[in-house]
Amino acid sequence: MQIIRVNTPTAKYEVVAGSGLLETLAPRIERAIGKLPRRVFVLTSPAIWALWRETFCASFREQPVVLFLPPGEKHKTMASVDRLLREMMRAGADRGSLLIAFGGGIVGDVGGFVAAIFMRGIPFVQVPTTFLAQVDSSVGGKTGVNLPEGKNLVGSFHQPRAVFADIGVLGTLPDREVGAGLMESVKAGIIRDRALVRYMEENAPLILGRDAKALEKVIAASIRMKAGVVNIDERESGLRMILNLGHTVGHAIEQATAYKVLLHGEAVAWGMIAALHLGAQRGTISRSQFERLQKLVYRYGPLPALKLRAAKVIAATSGDKKNVGGLRRFVLPLGIGDAGVVEDVSLAELEAAVGYMLAQAKG
Amino acid sequence: MQIIRVNTPTAKYEVVAGSGLLETLAPRIERAIGKLPRRVFVLTSPAIWALWRETFCASFREQPVVLFLPPGEKHKTMASVDRLLREMMRAGADRGSLLIAFGGGIVGDVGGFVAAIFMRGIPFVQVPTTFLAQVDSSVGGKTGVNLPEGKNLVGSFHQPRAVFADIGVLGTLPDREVGAGLMESVKAGIIRDRALVRYMEENAPLILGRDAKALEKVIAASIRMKAGVVNIDERESGLRMILNLGHTVGHAIEQATAYKVLLHGEAVAWGMIAALHLGAQRGTISRSQFERLQKLVYRYGPLPALKLRAAKVIAATSGDKKNVGGLRRFVLPLGIGDAGVVEDVSLAELEAAVGYMLAQAKG
Repeated sequence: MQIIRVNTPTAKYEVVAGSGLLETLAPRIERAIGKLPRRVFVLTSPAIWALWRETFCASFREQPVVLFLPPGEKHKTMASVDRLLREMMRAGADRGSLLIAFGGGIVGDVGGFVAAIFMRGIPFVQVPTTFLAQVDSSVGGKTGVNLPEGKNLVGSFHQPRAVFADIGVLGTLPDREVGAGLMESVKAGIIRDRALVRYMEENAPLILGRDAKALEKVIAASIRMKAGVVNIDERESGLRMILNLGHTVGHAIEQATAYKVLLHGEAVAWGMIAALHLGAQRGTISRSQFERLQKLVYRYGPLPALKLRAAKVIAATSGDKKNVGGLRRFVLPLGIGDAGVVEDVSLAELEAAVGYMLAQAKG
Repeated sequence: MQIIRVNTPTAKYEVVAGSGLLETLAPRIERAIGKLPRRVFVLTSPAIWALWRETFCASFREQPVVLFLPPGEKHKTMASVDRLLREMMRAGADRGSLLIAFGGGIVGDVGGFVAAIFMRGIPFVQVPTTFLAQVDSSVGGKTGVNLPEGKNLVGSFHQPRAVFADIGVLGTLPDREVGAGLMESVKAGIIRDRALVRYMEENAPLILGRDAKALEKVIAASIRMKAGVVNIDERESGLRMILNLGHTVGHAIEQATAYKVLLHGEAVAWGMIAALHLGAQRGTISRSQFERLQKLVYRYGPLPALKLRAAKVIAATSGDKKNVGGLRRFVLPLGIGDAGVVEDVSLAELEAAVGYMLAQAKG
């Protein structure tokens, strides 16, 4: 078990990563927030609840009120938020109630946002059940939903009071999802943790074989990286931007494929390939660093093939939330274990990077 | 012109109260936030815009994008928020865009909430056009909307970057609305400012006659009181609760009359009568202080008559957002110019206070 401390200007909390957390949840939450309130709510998906209900409830004296969010991006909407807020109100929620988000990234994003705005904010706890949610979205306080006009356009910064990443629940995940989640760990290594890059290069069979110790090490290192960045820059005014390595092009690919072809981690992986190429062209990484990091990305693949026109991907990059006042922002690797943000990427450079990535992705 | 500084853990901004602010808005906003961004949005009501459009736009080089919210509580909904977020997105808003809320309390609450959650928060500026919004709701960062289950159940704390309370725009308001707004100033005096109580006792004809100097004095004093409380307790974890003097019963009256009979300030006024009675019964104010403060409330009336059963009002107090874990919280005056929160109000005490108030309110 590993404990990572998050300490931002607005919040202080612990992320616990390890095995056996789910069956001991209630006392762990009490240690984090004090006595459990009169009403505890759990937001989850029907499938997760069917699998883990008994384990989850074992440690609660009073059973929590269960709220459901059906799976898929199409339910990450203002309409779902509205429905959940009303269900909570009708079930007797008040300002002191606790919301536990028990599921993947979408459950965490929606649950966190509901907790952020219900009566102007109630405490919430994240219990992420996917690899991606464990290493990335459950830490840092970003919450929100999509609009028909684009992803994650509405939301709040609302830090959880605690995060419990139980490695045991990952056992039921398909390989493809774990691989996609591991891309966030690859990203963590590239931007901030050389040792993690080396560990993932040297231990791919163990990690992909889901050895508990190896997974705990990778997950904890990824969370530690993210927590370290969030501690310095909670609101994404500077350093936190580097977490978006691979995301400018990654989001554009997701948009251009209507979010139907790739898992998020896979889109970010292709986005990283584009970013690595751009970095190599600019010389922010050497040719051999480029080869080494590209190999690492593919090692945790295979990535699905893409059949996209470059123009479509490039057009989609201009709607990115990270663009302020029309500028095109881009995160580039600086050697291995560091990254920086540039704002002067030319259209020609972007075309070259996207072209390279799409040639690789033809399959 | 008076400037009041708000200084909370999350924000630092100025509230400017005085005449002639509207025609010089753009440079004033630039002084507060730096260069105006590429996209400036104004949320307002059709009636306000018809009256003030020219004055408002005079100082802007590029015309702001106008968004409308029709008048009335029935539009203070998640559906309005959703529509406005989408309209902004389609009009090219980004993270750096500015939203100006130009209208009464509802425009400020909805606009502030939209600004709070659009791309997880963009800057906004309040330009309140009603007395109530100028002295109360535009300062302090409370934003939000109603659910069918109750008022203000959804929202955020999101501080404005500046507030401009132009006394000139109050000229077109009906007397009843100004009177209702002045109840918040009466409240401000009772809970925190003896001198304001005395000034309002001695200068009622001037204030009710809308003498510009007298109004500026009352408005600035009310804002200063609110800012002082918010500076100490931004999130309503303690002191800020005293701002709710008259609100427990006031909200209950509003709910019991389906928000159709009274203006908010009038409901708070009747709620203050109940709170003053409760205070007098408990001895937190003397009999003569009770008479004096009750007279002050009525001086800024007349308050509309109420035909309500006490049981209905009392039942409605139990849904109040300020009740945590089933406790019934109540703000009581402590002499003149101070107030405190109690949590042990018995049903019998509440019945007596509501009974007294309803007897007064029979007309």
